[in-house]
Amino acid sequence: MNAQHSTGINIQQTNKSLIKITETMITFNINKPSKEICPKIQNKIDCLTKPLGSLGRLESLALKIGTIQQTDTPALRNPHNILFAADHGVIEEGVSVSPKAVTWQQLSHFSKGGAGINFLCNQHGFRLVLVDAGVDYDIPEGRGIIDCKIRKSTRNFLHGPAMTNKEFELALERGAKVVEDVFDSGCNVVSFGEMGSGNTSSSSMWMHVFTGIPLAECIGAGAGLDKAGVSHKLDVLSRAMENYSGGNRPEDYMAWFGGYEMVMAVGGMLKAAELGMLIIVDGFIMTACILAASRLYPDVLEYAVFGHQGDEAGHNLMLRFLGADAILHLGLRLGEGSGAVCAYPILESAVRMINEMDSFESVGVIKYF
Amino acid sequence: MNAQHSTGINIQQTNKSLIKITETMITFNINKPSKEICPKIQNKIDCLTKPLGSLGRLESLALKIGTIQQTDTPALRNPHNILFAADHGVIEEGVSVSPKAVTWQQLSHFSKGGAGINFLCNQHGFRLVLVDAGVDYDIPEGRGIIDCKIRKSTRNFLHGPAMTNKEFELALERGAKVVEDVFDSGCNVVSFGEMGSGNTSSSSMWMHVFTGIPLAECIGAGAGLDKAGVSHKLDVLSRAMENYSGGNRPEDYMAWFGGYEMVMAVGGMLKAAELGMLIIVDGFIMTACILAASRLYPDVLEYAVFGHQGDEAGHNLMLRFLGADAILHLGLRLGEGSGAVCAYPILESAVRMINEMDSFESVGVIKYF
Repeated sequence: MNAQHSTGINIQQTNKSLIKITETMITFNINKPSKEICPKIQNKIDCLTKPLGSLGRLESLALKIGTIQQTDTPALRNPHNILFAADHGVIEEGVSVSPKAVTWQQLSHFSKGGAGINFLCNQHGFRLVLVDAGVDYDIPEGRGIIDCKIRKSTRNFLHGPAMTNKEFELALERGAKVVEDVFDSGCNVVSFGEMGSGNTSSSSMWMHVFTGIPLAECIGAGAGLDKAGVSHKLDVLSRAMENYSGGNRPEDYMAWFGGYEMVMAVGGMLKAAELGMLIIVDGFIMTACILAASRLYPDVLEYAVFGHQGDEAGHNLMLRFLGADAILHLGLRLGEGSGAVCAYPILESAVRMINEMDSFESVGVIKYF
Repeated sequence: MNAQHSTGINIQQTNKSLIKITETMITFNINKPSKEICPKIQNKIDCLTKPLGSLGRLESLALKIGTIQQTDTPALRNPHNILFAADHGVIEEGVSVSPKAVTWQQLSHFSKGGAGINFLCNQHGFRLVLVDAGVDYDIPEGRGIIDCKIRKSTRNFLHGPAMTNKEFELALERGAKVVEDVFDSGCNVVSFGEMGSGNTSSSSMWMHVFTGIPLAECIGAGAGLDKAGVSHKLDVLSRAMENYSGGNRPEDYMAWFGGYEMVMAVGGMLKAAELGMLIIVDGFIMTACILAASRLYPDVLEYAVFGHQGDEAGHNLMLRFLGADAILHLGLRLGEGSGAVCAYPILESAVRMINEMDSFESVGVIKYF
């Protein structure tokens, strides 16, 4: 498939009231990285001054990053964390501990610094890109928040589709465009984060329909529901599933149950893969997004590493379904991209290892295995 | 107990052929950090702009570091990785895949840069301190390797004690002195690493005698033994245990089966705790060292975090015995302090969290739980 780059969206100038309806579904030209280079990379790793395999995960990550970049001298450049924010209609069913207002308040907070994702981005040299994907608030200008708003909040998916197919396509395109701009600025490694009260509900629905795992195992406490709250959430989501009357394509499910921020993340991930970037997947919600993305383009997974396995029930099951093993297990459940950004120094270690360590041959140390 | 600081060792000037015999056992004045400050720290963490508990491990680490430093504005300053190297007499029984020569070659390699621990220290701003604790080689001067050599290699513990009690005490003192010097340079967080062909054997013995876990479960592949090699190692170590005729004090076991680099690490850990420093414990060998240290002074554990759980069989069991949960699980088995240094950015994140994040009150975001 050929990429359709010309979505005609200039992010900086997008009028927030404009919902641009495209006639054609955006496509992505995602190539599976050639494995031909793998033996060369692996051999370089095996000749470094250490017992064979003794740098464990750093070695497999170096191989993965090298394969994506098709080189045995990989480099991570100009990392970005793209944080998509949006509101969810289903929140009116009481499925979240946090009210809608928190989405905007937190987005505003991110733009001023001082939130969780800010200190992590500062620590690891990430540029934080904030995107209004569909927040139920008139975002003031001059906050550095990119306006990609599709609509003020999705609709309540208990009673019908959260978004139209046209809105879905537009969100996919806009997410892709944000990543394209970031790539053009010299970035080759990107993580995605989210803010959206109610979006663990959408994620649980995507997980359920794309894995077949029973809904009860896909649902957790979100930002802090108690047991009764989780039980109510299961009831609401079960009824939503019963009410589903959409099509059978992945896009149909994604549009019906999704959030604008989630579809934009899917578009962003697919574009990142098309551009050969390394994708660092965050927690439960972003894992649901790359799972959905892989239903459209399975090879997107070739470009992804999973930063963190959190405590949200179902995340472990979804990672296992994807055959993925997260780098960190720190019990985070913040979202915002925090788990992905936290994992960055491990990726950097992998790259430093293959570039900075001497080989046995070069330093005359006995290769003792 | 009072600290006995005046060991009379000037590291820079120690004559490598001198084995200084002290008359009194060094003691350490380790205070359990007061828990009175904990509610204040916890309250500060709970009021940060995030769902309660949602930064998981970062929160518990911030509480731990704050408690050690007795402040809700903790800071990590001038981190050092102290790497003790020594040779082991038991290696003549064929218990290690790497010959003795590798100890010196790798130590020399560390001093030039280009080894595993070098890129990690460079990445995370650690100063690497290299210490000759008992390497079986005449270390050339001018390499920046601190001369604390007790003897060229321990004796073979299959047939008798690896070191004398006097050597044990001297090693403890010298390890403490290295940490004292590092503390005096403004450091308040220290990790320990090791290099010593054969030292997983000593570690397995310490683990066995200090936990009571059957020897077979304390033994692993070290730097790369095959199944037959592991079986032979178990046979040698079982016979060594049968041959044991020392006393019942922890010091007796430590001296009989230990390595000079391991006893120095014990001394270093105890001094670090006395000085209120944060100790980052590396993998299997360093975990055996803090286990041994805790047999002399249980409160040393109050100052320790465990950086990494590796693949060496028994490490998981030993961590469980200590009630410890390692920060990272990356399948490393390099030693050198690599797992501890890899974990540093997580500690830094914990400290940044409590210092840099806003509170709900200060920014006017709804506290939604």
